[in-house]
Amino acid sequence: MKRKRSLPLSRVYRLLEPGPVVLLTTARKGRANVMPMSWHTMIDFEPPLVGCVVSDRNFTFESLKATRECVINIPTVELAPAVVGCGNTSGRRVDKFERFGLTAEPASRVEAPLVAECYANLECKVVDTRMAARYDLFILEVVAAWIDPSRKRPETIHHRGGGLFMVAGREIKLPSGKP
Amino acid sequence: MKRKRSLPLSRVYRLLEPGPVVLLTTARKGRANVMPMSWHTMIDFEPPLVGCVVSDRNFTFESLKATRECVINIPTVELAPAVVGCGNTSGRRVDKFERFGLTAEPASRVEAPLVAECYANLECKVVDTRMAARYDLFILEVVAAWIDPSRKRPETIHHRGGGLFMVAGREIKLPSGKP
Repeated sequence: MKRKRSLPLSRVYRLLEPGPVVLLTTARKGRANVMPMSWHTMIDFEPPLVGCVVSDRNFTFESLKATRECVINIPTVELAPAVVGCGNTSGRRVDKFERFGLTAEPASRVEAPLVAECYANLECKVVDTRMAARYDLFILEVVAAWIDPSRKRPETIHHRGGGLFMVAGREIKLPSGKP
Repeated sequence: MKRKRSLPLSRVYRLLEPGPVVLLTTARKGRANVMPMSWHTMIDFEPPLVGCVVSDRNFTFESLKATRECVINIPTVELAPAVVGCGNTSGRRVDKFERFGLTAEPASRVEAPLVAECYANLECKVVDTRMAARYDLFILEVVAAWIDPSRKRPETIHHRGGGLFMVAGREIKLPSGKP
């Protein structure tokens, strides 16, 4: 992790609240996979809990259930073609890291790899699968977080459906009393 | 609903996937309330299911549990000061519609009002409260949806924490095979 520093877990919500498309990595039987995901939400601040929806039609679903580990990687706009490519292929047939030029780096607390090209990486344990059967909904706890401190205003991408993505725009500051 | 048209329920996910701050309205005993919310995710396409986290410290929590109805209203950047104002006050003490110049309009399927100034409004029924006690997580079904068709690129706002908001930026189109 050359360029990245550890991010306090209390700050993790700041990365996911704006709703970016993320890349979810898993590893099972020595084989890593990666899929884009837009259906996620913060659930608690600290320890950071995240709810995410992974369809049982996806190759990732079984890995997540079996290994109970994953990494949420947050890409920026220059990775958009790779993100869409990962969504259009299945890890059942393709090594997506190789196909889309993504670099798998070892994580510190889980077997699933970090995507080196992403500006932030959240190592997660699955802590609740009771909603997986009915809603494909998993509850994750973030156990370690990494961020590239040089990226002050990351141009995250946000899916608007049908291949249309909104790129993070300008920032405004308002006197919010909330975290 | 002068300017708005009905939105097909199959399109609802396109409004929430990018992760905008929304205004959640409820009504109980003839009294409406409104709170900003960033912790939400799509859960299914059609009927559209939405998971949302409402802290049990919020006035809205009890209304949601008791009435099992609400409206998700999506504001754009010109409403940002009102959104922050709604987050800094409690409906226990303040009529936030009056205080922040928001117009409550009748909904078609629920008692909770629409916020007229928002470019889209999703009328919701609470369909599952089993995760409310543990995670403050409610599962909503969108039963009617309204959109202002004149707003082609709504400048939604996305919370980055501590009063910092990202405003929706430019759009890019990529050959995604996904919805």
